[in-house]
Amino acid sequence: MTAPRFDLFGIGNAIVDVLARAEDDFLVAEGMAKSSMALIDEARAQALYGKIGQTVLVSGGSAANTCVGAAMLGARVAFAGKVRDDELGRSFIHDIRAAGVAFDVPPATDGLSTASCTILVTPDGERTMNTFLGASQNLGPDDIDASQVADSAITYLEGYLWDPPAAKAAFRRAAEIAHGAGRTVALSLSDLFCVDRHRPEFLELLKSGTVDVVFANEAEAKSLAETSDLKSAIGVLRDLARIAVITRSEDGAVITEGSTIVAVPAHPIERIVDATGAGDLYAAGFLTGLGRGFSLEDCARLGALAAAEVIQHMGARPQADLKALAAEEGIALAPEVA
Amino acid sequence: MTAPRFDLFGIGNAIVDVLARAEDDFLVAEGMAKSSMALIDEARAQALYGKIGQTVLVSGGSAANTCVGAAMLGARVAFAGKVRDDELGRSFIHDIRAAGVAFDVPPATDGLSTASCTILVTPDGERTMNTFLGASQNLGPDDIDASQVADSAITYLEGYLWDPPAAKAAFRRAAEIAHGAGRTVALSLSDLFCVDRHRPEFLELLKSGTVDVVFANEAEAKSLAETSDLKSAIGVLRDLARIAVITRSEDGAVITEGSTIVAVPAHPIERIVDATGAGDLYAAGFLTGLGRGFSLEDCARLGALAAAEVIQHMGARPQADLKALAAEEGIALAPEVA
Repeated sequence: MTAPRFDLFGIGNAIVDVLARAEDDFLVAEGMAKSSMALIDEARAQALYGKIGQTVLVSGGSAANTCVGAAMLGARVAFAGKVRDDELGRSFIHDIRAAGVAFDVPPATDGLSTASCTILVTPDGERTMNTFLGASQNLGPDDIDASQVADSAITYLEGYLWDPPAAKAAFRRAAEIAHGAGRTVALSLSDLFCVDRHRPEFLELLKSGTVDVVFANEAEAKSLAETSDLKSAIGVLRDLARIAVITRSEDGAVITEGSTIVAVPAHPIERIVDATGAGDLYAAGFLTGLGRGFSLEDCARLGALAAAEVIQHMGARPQADLKALAAEEGIALAPEVA
Repeated sequence: MTAPRFDLFGIGNAIVDVLARAEDDFLVAEGMAKSSMALIDEARAQALYGKIGQTVLVSGGSAANTCVGAAMLGARVAFAGKVRDDELGRSFIHDIRAAGVAFDVPPATDGLSTASCTILVTPDGERTMNTFLGASQNLGPDDIDASQVADSAITYLEGYLWDPPAAKAAFRRAAEIAHGAGRTVALSLSDLFCVDRHRPEFLELLKSGTVDVVFANEAEAKSLAETSDLKSAIGVLRDLARIAVITRSEDGAVITEGSTIVAVPAHPIERIVDATGAGDLYAAGFLTGLGRGFSLEDCARLGALAAAEVIQHMGARPQADLKALAAEEGIALAPEVA
């Protein structure tokens, strides 16, 4: 096994976020499940756009956000996702490349528009997401560069990929290549309802060893384990994955690796503005640390720090210098290997 | 003179801002004058886009920002500006209407793209702007709804309108209609270099009484008066305008009305994130107060409060509930007249 060219290869839906502030009443009136993600079609996306307030447009996509965060922390990163060759698609490509992430999947020249996610941010900072998958659902196995995957220490996949059928095949192919090359495969469970939709397959991915490292928040962990007891859920995830990371918002995170269980507190913040991207950036920090051979505690600290940055402004892409923030906390990120 | 239907009618360039963080070195390398606005063409805008980091897209435009802020403070507001019928244009129209501002200018169906402003935000929170005027420069006198202007207590114009020649005619026409209906005309000097380009005309607008209320920051005031002495500059503006508002960032503002001169401190903030829109939102608060018959001090307090909100996040459109912030400060904004 040669030294990998990339620290992280991410595969996910390539999405531009349309963020707007909204009151809780609006979510209720629109029948939205707060803090979760719902799939919508283009007509619904347009109708919703007509009802929401002023918007902020920022590139998003769960695994894409993670890749950007990791790159900003000095990791060498590539990402695969599908956009259309339209305005939003060009914006997505610009932003991910501007963050230093290698991105080589050609945009679709016809068919559905670039995916967009209408994100309503309530006064408590929680985000409720409405995703039009658009062109992103056409990501297929042929869009995955086998040499890039084989050459990446960690391949990271978002659970949301289980929604579009073609992407699922891309996911499985990437996992095979990664394990064939002796690499690590990580998965985020993404969303409570996503777990609900795909529980048997997610369990199979973990049981079969297709996935080595799993990220879940408390609700996702409980849903996967079909229990209301956090401790039981942690036990289930511990038995299923080599490393399980259970994030608990302001209550920090619990990480298991075999018989080792560590709890690491959340990073202190002044005020939550917009929770969009919290989990994605936690994964960015954690995986960057894992790639550097950090202890589980330090991986978790780096994750918490990156998550804390992204929830203090609108949008899921970091705006501050994450490396500098890590240095302030005494987490030294050696310069990346050329 | 009947009671006006609108408190404020704004005319300005209709622009979508493309914000990115940048280091001071980048501004130097690109030959940009920090904290000011430069006009660029579409090719330069595209070349610049290729060099900047991750972006946040937010509707902008100086007078448009002011109109949105005033509407959020409960004023009845209309805006005129020109976009193209493209993605950015639709986004601009959505956002200004979503803020409750009446907007009826039809978008251009051909010609230049919707205006965009590439805004580089340095670590000190200062913004340096590069504007491609695009479709906004085709705003002409025919785009101004005479009845709306006549029916607005205050018509507000941005100095940037002096850059595109057709808009200048729209500006003059609006001022004539406003004064013909016994209304007030306000002008922002917009930018140091804008004042430099158009000093004789700006002086003529003030001397001729075409403009009643003028907004300038310290640098713009000094440039208009061609002096390096702030006190002299304030004296010149006081003699030229019925009301002169000179904003001084963290040093607050000085307002003159005839022999009355008041100094009002800045609103305290935690941390400046992005100065984009500070002056625009100051004008929003001040003009809203003026329309309600507030004292100069209270107009200034409302201006300072709105400016303080907008500099604590990326983008020039308020994200918090400005009315609620005003209420917290004991500034009661009676419900708008139906």
